[in-house]
Amino acid sequence: MEIRRVVGSLVCTQRIAELAHVDLRVLQDAAGRRVVATDPVGARPDDWVFVVSGSAARYAMGNPAILTDLTVGGVIDHWPPEAASEPSSPPHGTPRR
Amino acid sequence: MEIRRVVGSLVCTQRIAELAHVDLRVLQDAAGRRVVATDPVGARPDDWVFVVSGSAARYAMGNPAILTDLTVGGVIDHWPPEAASEPSSPPHGTPRR
Amino acid sequence: MEIRRVVGSLVCTQRIAELAHVDLRVLQDAAGRRVVATDPVGARPDDWVFVVSGSAARYAMGNPAILTDLTVGGVIDHWPPEAASEPSSPPHGTPRR
Amino acid sequence: MEIRRVVGSLVCTQRIAELAHVDLRVLQDAAGRRVVATDPVGARPDDWVFVVSGSAARYAMGNPAILTDLTVGGVIDHWPPEAASEPSSPPHGTPRR
Amino acid sequence: MEIRRVVGSLVCTQRIAELAHVDLRVLQDAAGRRVVATDPVGARPDDWVFVVSGSAARYAMGNPAILTDLTVGGVIDHWPPEAASEPSSPPHGTPRR
Repeated sequence: MEIRRVVGSLVCTQRIAELAHVDLRVLQDAAGRRVVATDPVGARPDDWVFVVSGSAARYAMGNPAILTDLTVGGVIDHWPPEAASEPSSPPHGTPRR
Repeated sequence: MEIRRVVGSLVCTQRIAELAHVDLRVLQDAAGRRVVATDPVGARPDDWVFVVSGSAARYAMGNPAILTDLTVGGVIDHWPPEAASEPSSPPHGTPRR
Repeated sequence: MEIRRVVGSLVCTQRIAELAHVDLRVLQDAAGRRVVATDPVGARPDDWVFVVSGSAARYAMGNPAILTDLTVGGVIDHWPPEAASEPSSPPHGTPRR
Repeated sequence: MEIRRVVGSLVCTQRIAELAHVDLRVLQDAAGRRVVATDPVGARPDDWVFVVSGSAARYAMGNPAILTDLTVGGVIDHWPPEAASEPSSPPHGTPRR
Repeated sequence: MEIRRVVGSLVCTQRIAELAHVDLRVLQDAAGRRVVATDPVGARPDDWVFVVSGSAARYAMGNPAILTDLTVGGVIDHWPPEAASEPSSPPHGTPRR
């Protein structure tokens, strides 16, 4: 699941019937690129969320007839700080354990 | 769902039977990259739209036998302005709420 | 659907049984990156085509037992010229219509 | 399957019911980009893992009702060293074998 | 289908049951990025292969219970040389044929 920040809601009157009564959120990644997601969780602007994609996005709405490909799966409370050491690749040549 | 702008229609006489009678739109992202989508909404050139991908794209045409992987889901009327503050990552180490 | 140009055919004798009797095309994007696709349309080298991905690629072969994830959906005859104006983002803050 | 490193666990109290009782891991790629995955394997921080995406991610949890799109498939013990020769493209024009 | 080169095999003792008895290959793209794939074909190090992704990857193993999202579909013998002319975009404005 990708990590995104909520920017706000999307105003969109002309849409397919399968998304007629669904709230659409505008999300943004760290680089500022925006996408649109359905939101059964009730995330608020500036919340960081993780999103579920693919067919799981439809089931996550509680109704697979809602034709989304991206759904907010949860609001992130906090996450781990940067690791002290950040090797750029896994060890190779010899087993690790 | 990704956000794209409508450029126009695609002329394509030699195509698979499952897309024979379907209008194909050329869409463009902010970087100018072009893709092709089916459009049950009737978007017009210069409209900004959001698109549904994967198997949901087929169902969004009202007929899963239409073998598209990208369908216009709605025409964007407007969206939120840039956020005042844009933190580059979620808070970490301590809970937010 | 993504837009690609046909480079030629792929010679590949050692392959999975589900792709044994299928013509494989090498396609290239504008940046020169190459991918492999099945082709029920009969595209020729230098043709520009659009391709269908995901499970739709299997159905587009007329036989979902053909285990492709990318199928040529049609040959592009022509497409719209560049738009005169190219706004980099949709309007925001106020409705467009 | 993509290769990622485990950073830690995600704290996320407000989430969809289908992910209510599932441990969520924060993973990171070599460039530092973070994603969220479900983990039936029990990977630990700093482990390098490979992840399964799409509908296979749900089945990999042993329960397709768990609405994830990314699941840890295994912990990498070690992998091959860099190849001595690294041709930038496959041979072409003449058969290899 | 994407094109990748085989680097070697992955050693991975702690993995999900659905991948317990499957050979895992490390593949690399032209830029050196590595991914993990299942391999029913028996590709060898330095072979160039094409890979099938998504649900097709499971069926390509001959058993959809094998929870992979990437499977080697064939070993590339050779492919077409670079095209003499490489237009950067399809013709537009006027029909090609």
